[in-house]
Amino acid sequence: MKLGMTKFLTPFRVIVISYVAAMFVISLLLFLPFSTQDGISITYDEALFTAVSAVSVTGLTVVNVSETYSWAGILFLALGIQLGGIGVMTLGTFVWMVLGRKIPLSQRMLIMVDQNQISFSGLVRLMRGILLAALVIQLIGATILGTYYLNYFDTTFEAYYQGAFSAMTAFTNAGFDITGQSLVPFVDDYFVQLVHMLLIFAGAIGFPVLLELREYFSPKNPNFRFSLFTKIATSTYFIVFGIGVAMLWIFERNAFYDGMPWHSQLFFSLFNSATARSGGLSTMDMNELTLASLLLMSGLMIIGASPSSVGGGIRTTTLAVMFLTIRSFALGRDDVKVFGREIHAEDKQKAFIVLSVFAVGLFGAIMMIAAFEGTGEFVLMAILFEASSAFGTSGLSMGITPDLSFPSQVVLMILMLVGRVGLVAFLFSIRAQEKKTTYKHPTERIIIG
Amino acid sequence: MKLGMTKFLTPFRVIVISYVAAMFVISLLLFLPFSTQDGISITYDEALFTAVSAVSVTGLTVVNVSETYSWAGILFLALGIQLGGIGVMTLGTFVWMVLGRKIPLSQRMLIMVDQNQISFSGLVRLMRGILLAALVIQLIGATILGTYYLNYFDTTFEAYYQGAFSAMTAFTNAGFDITGQSLVPFVDDYFVQLVHMLLIFAGAIGFPVLLELREYFSPKNPNFRFSLFTKIATSTYFIVFGIGVAMLWIFERNAFYDGMPWHSQLFFSLFNSATARSGGLSTMDMNELTLASLLLMSGLMIIGASPSSVGGGIRTTTLAVMFLTIRSFALGRDDVKVFGREIHAEDKQKAFIVLSVFAVGLFGAIMMIAAFEGTGEFVLMAILFEASSAFGTSGLSMGITPDLSFPSQVVLMILMLVGRVGLVAFLFSIRAQEKKTTYKHPTERIIIG
Ligand SMILES: [K+]
Ligand SMILES: [K+]
Repeated sequence: MKLGMTKFLTPFRVIVISYVAAMFVISLLLFLPFSTQDGISITYDEALFTAVSAVSVTGLTVVNVSETYSWAGILFLALGIQLGGIGVMTLGTFVWMVLGRKIPLSQRMLIMVDQNQISFSGLVRLMRGILLAALVIQLIGATILGTYYLNYFDTTFEAYYQGAFSAMTAFTNAGFDITGQSLVPFVDDYFVQLVHMLLIFAGAIGFPVLLELREYFSPKNPNFRFSLFTKIATSTYFIVFGIGVAMLWIFERNAFYDGMPWHSQLFFSLFNSATARSGGLSTMDMNELTLASLLLMSGLMIIGASPSSVGGGIRTTTLAVMFLTIRSFALGRDDVKVFGREIHAEDKQKAFIVLSVFAVGLFGAIMMIAAFEGTGEFVLMAILFEASSAFGTSGLSMGITPDLSFPSQVVLMILMLVGRVGLVAFLFSIRAQEKKTTYKHPTERIIIG
Repeated sequence: MKLGMTKFLTPFRVIVISYVAAMFVISLLLFLPFSTQDGISITYDEALFTAVSAVSVTGLTVVNVSETYSWAGILFLALGIQLGGIGVMTLGTFVWMVLGRKIPLSQRMLIMVDQNQISFSGLVRLMRGILLAALVIQLIGATILGTYYLNYFDTTFEAYYQGAFSAMTAFTNAGFDITGQSLVPFVDDYFVQLVHMLLIFAGAIGFPVLLELREYFSPKNPNFRFSLFTKIATSTYFIVFGIGVAMLWIFERNAFYDGMPWHSQLFFSLFNSATARSGGLSTMDMNELTLASLLLMSGLMIIGASPSSVGGGIRTTTLAVMFLTIRSFALGRDDVKVFGREIHAEDKQKAFIVLSVFAVGLFGAIMMIAAFEGTGEFVLMAILFEASSAFGTSGLSMGITPDLSFPSQVVLMILMLVGRVGLVAFLFSIRAQEKKTTYKHPTERIIIG
């Protein structure tokens, strides 16, 4: 019996179950009477959607957070965001450590899986590093933003409270806001936008990258070499960011940007390209964008952030392997090379599976929402936008999410969960026990495409 | 110089160049003054679009064929359809044979590539078989439809003329019509619809399947075994067809089908699921469908027909390998097995590349059309529908193609060409010379998804 249970509870399954459990716990906390403001009540469906959105650090909402939740509710929301952002398993293990116990190997494996790490070595060190990095970055962000917000808010407390929430929501890429207007009030304050963008980058670039950067600048490691993962993830992240900035400018220069000064055009492009890749905060109403830009934003949200980060989507490395494989094919090569290394066949296989499942899944999700909503109330662009936002755990919205029926909202919740857990981890969690093949079938060629 | 030319003119490149050349020749023929009806003139852009649509057997149009082209024009259109449908190279080689020359090996390779065949054996026999099958099936179809059309048309000539064109447009999956109303007048004539569906199947199922069927029923080959290709292509073709029928019924039963007798509901579902997979003829206005059905139809058009057929899209075998790979992964297996055979690693690689290039390409194409069309005149659903129709060489339309700007129409033309040639053949045509790798780089694992 015990053995059967252990066999069932593979690391990937524990991860998924932990996220789901965290979502339900937060939903119950948010549903408590004192979690909402006086005279305001929410349905359990609304509490559940908010909880799923918080733990998956997405930021899509069916209720206006600032007008609905009390102090206690916002605290529970923040708890959900930290749980989901820094990693259910990492926090769980931290508690374990604080309680003075040793970390058993099985537990170490869980963190490895949650943070998507491949090597076992230095796992405890890695986890301490992640927690420390998350804490330090959020503290620095809160201090800078809080101090700067003294210009905006009446009391010192309000300024630092808003600064701390902003730093958290930016670094964890949660995208929630407690002002009710996201960053729209700061549309001309480029300093605030820059700080938020840097925090979004820090969260989305991937924890391994942050830790390797620290090693790189440490005097102890003169021969330090960045891993292939860090090179691919970081370059893909910023190349896609740059393409996003350029294309947004091309699509909007004669539309929304028409007549704006160059620096406004630049910052709208910079901020939108950054926030689509899991951030979710916004300086403008998405409905102002052209159809081409909305498609571009959907694409950026779908690509999402790096693995082992606070973001979602198909992830930067999946996109990179896709493009590297196409490039290899175009150049007439059999192997896929980059940065003087070869991509492992199994990683190519994973990328293919992620892409396939994503394509079928997103298409199916959008078709289901269209079917649930019936006759033509919502246009395809809006449905695609919200679904991409959910899968990329971005949280940007064209505003239709609160108006969708509950079955459609369930579809969005599933997209948020899968987007946060990551398609590979999610698939591993529902995968059958690995089978050793006892004999080979003969291979026969077929015609493709 | 001669050697350099031969080196440049790889079989795949010759195929693509031949299609493009055929498109330009037909466009010039359609642009001749006597190709249009008295008092009607078209621009060269319109002639080019019609020619690309004909040679790619798509059926999207920017002008009303029945009201625009003269007898000569329709003859040129039919020539384009036969060229594109039966295969530029096959017809070319047929001419060569008729002239009494032997087929040189290089020429045989071209047919092999055009019809996407892998083995060299029996190539001339294969080509004769394809031409004979195409001719016989179209003749049978023309006889049945022509005779039956005696009930509908005033003169015997008109009935058989319409019957012959119908049989051609259905078997080649061209989707053009010379009545100006497609099959809408036959919305209650299930016999006409059934004959058209059978012709669409025969064209889209793939030539190798037709030839293997003939061998199977031949008394000469008692031990005949269907190839893996035929098994995968045929089962995928009909499974997707069945899913399409079922889902159309689910999506429309309370919408367009509301209040219809069951047989009307059945035949609308059957015909739409069949025609989306490259046929292009229609018994109804696509704008009557719900958003969910329009998405489903777009998906069916994107999947398209089998390789080595008259259809387009990512092709049935690509979809099959995608699903088989996902299934293998879910079952915890390393190899991809089906029908007691194993899928070759290179075919999996091709499927991955087709899927990747398709995803990026269709997304890019839709974004470009959205950008070209500027501010919100066309909704995303309509753009996606026309783009899917072009790539799947289906030819179904929500009616916006004639209203698109010429740059957007160019995007559709490229999609039609690539959809017809097939992504694999197209990619091989722009691929660099295969390079033997001189040394291996070290492999390094990364984190995916
Ligand atoms: K977010
Ligand atoms: K067609």
